[in-house]
Amino acid sequence: MPTETERCIESLLAVFQRYAGRDGNNCTLSKREFLAFMNTELAAFTKNQKDPCVVDRMMKKLDLNSDGQLDFQEFLNLIGGIAVACHNSLVVNAPTP
Amino acid sequence: MPTETERCIESLLAVFQRYAGRDGNNCTLSKREFLAFMNTELAAFTKNQKDPCVVDRMMKKLDLNSDGQLDFQEFLNLIGGIAVACHNSLVVNAPTP
Repeated sequence: MPTETERCIESLLAVFQRYAGRDGNNCTLSKREFLAFMNTELAAFTKNQKDPCVVDRMMKKLDLNSDGQLDFQEFLNLIGGIAVACHNSLVVNAPTP
Repeated sequence: MPTETERCIESLLAVFQRYAGRDGNNCTLSKREFLAFMNTELAAFTKNQKDPCVVDRMMKKLDLNSDGQLDFQEFLNLIGGIAVACHNSLVVNAPTP
């Protein structure tokens, strides 16, 4: 049986493949695929954004080599960024002993 | 209900906290905590290593600021590295259409 960490790595691979496989190059997320990912998998975040350009700007920022596509490493930087932000907010908001 | 991506982010945070909370600073993994993590969560990897120093070397490589501890960002670099390695081996080994 896989451990929690192994399950997590498998999930990240599966989610990326699910969206990257929709059109064109199935090793990268196009802008359209990234939007679909954000609006489905991270809807709790996107629906609270008042600025409709926020996902566009995120895509530009994540696309380190500016090829208009997100590869798996660039996608992981997003997941890592969100996880670090959650972690920091939990640590900052934790009651001091 | 959380999405697969949200569950995954929660899992990464929970696993890190579980091991980081064992001794000393509960925002970082000491070498002892990192060993416990590797031997439990990534045992499938560690048990196949013939070189007993491999986990030591991984810790040194991941510890970017060389403080002898892994913070959450440094921990995520490991998860990301494993995920990228899995992704690349899946893509390379995939049958060409």
